[in-house]
Amino acid sequence: MLIRDAEAADWDAVWPFFRTIVAAGETYTYPRDLDEPTARGMWMLAPPGRTVVAVDETTGDVLGSAKMNPNHMGGASHIASASFMVDPAHAGRGVGRALGGSMLAWARAEGYRAVQFNAVVESNTRAVALWKSLGFEVMTTLPEGFLHPTLGYVGLHIMYRRL
Amino acid sequence: MLIRDAEAADWDAVWPFFRTIVAAGETYTYPRDLDEPTARGMWMLAPPGRTVVAVDETTGDVLGSAKMNPNHMGGASHIASASFMVDPAHAGRGVGRALGGSMLAWARAEGYRAVQFNAVVESNTRAVALWKSLGFEVMTTLPEGFLHPTLGYVGLHIMYRRL
Repeated sequence: MLIRDAEAADWDAVWPFFRTIVAAGETYTYPRDLDEPTARGMWMLAPPGRTVVAVDETTGDVLGSAKMNPNHMGGASHIASASFMVDPAHAGRGVGRALGGSMLAWARAEGYRAVQFNAVVESNTRAVALWKSLGFEVMTTLPEGFLHPTLGYVGLHIMYRRL
Repeated sequence: MLIRDAEAADWDAVWPFFRTIVAAGETYTYPRDLDEPTARGMWMLAPPGRTVVAVDETTGDVLGSAKMNPNHMGGASHIASASFMVDPAHAGRGVGRALGGSMLAWARAEGYRAVQFNAVVESNTRAVALWKSLGFEVMTTLPEGFLHPTLGYVGLHIMYRRL
């Protein structure tokens, strides 16, 4: 698996699984009916942000994508944020872990002192476990912070890792 | 003291103390050299956000301002956020408290279920005490989350209040 900077042309491969994940409404605080141009603008970042894709080196398939960016401005601009989308068709292959590791390396290289995830849905236990295994801590859980389409209100974690 | 929706013309009264507060770099995660058009765009919100001013009913002076808006999208869009600026020349008159109360009333009326402050500087003890007295709780403190110009790294509180 290769992780590299996303190019504009990669979006066509990201959008189908991005749309599927967002439309499900279970893991992301994005509007479920997010339109394609808005999604592209939110995901495909220019510096100081960065967007990467994970690519199968054999088939060339885009397996997942991550965006990373400053979480705050001014006196808190040393805290980064990041978001991840893995194609469900390629789940279980370590794509999220590889993207997470790549993000941490980027954040260190850019001089950030910490990474803060603002909204990790409590019921997304797979993601929570992955981030914990990469050194993130649940700092707090906003009670009933997220309305899950089938579970109802669940907590919304804020996760944090110092670098 | 009257609290009313801000009009475009109010910005000229807000900007001088806004600029002073932001330039000090002690309480806000805004760039200290934030330029006027950017500041105006960030502060003077259109629906679904709202910006208000607190006005001295006798003199007509603008004493402070607050903006309030959705904190998240999608499944977390029931959580509001808000920011407050009080003219230091009018500190100690309860302007912040009045703006905070007005914001909570707005959030309830708009159907929000909670208000989340994303970045309250730990050393801004006056603000922290005010929000606590208005029912907010420090959910967590991001360690060394804010670089204060004289204190160095201090914590950054995330505060929350259910409605």
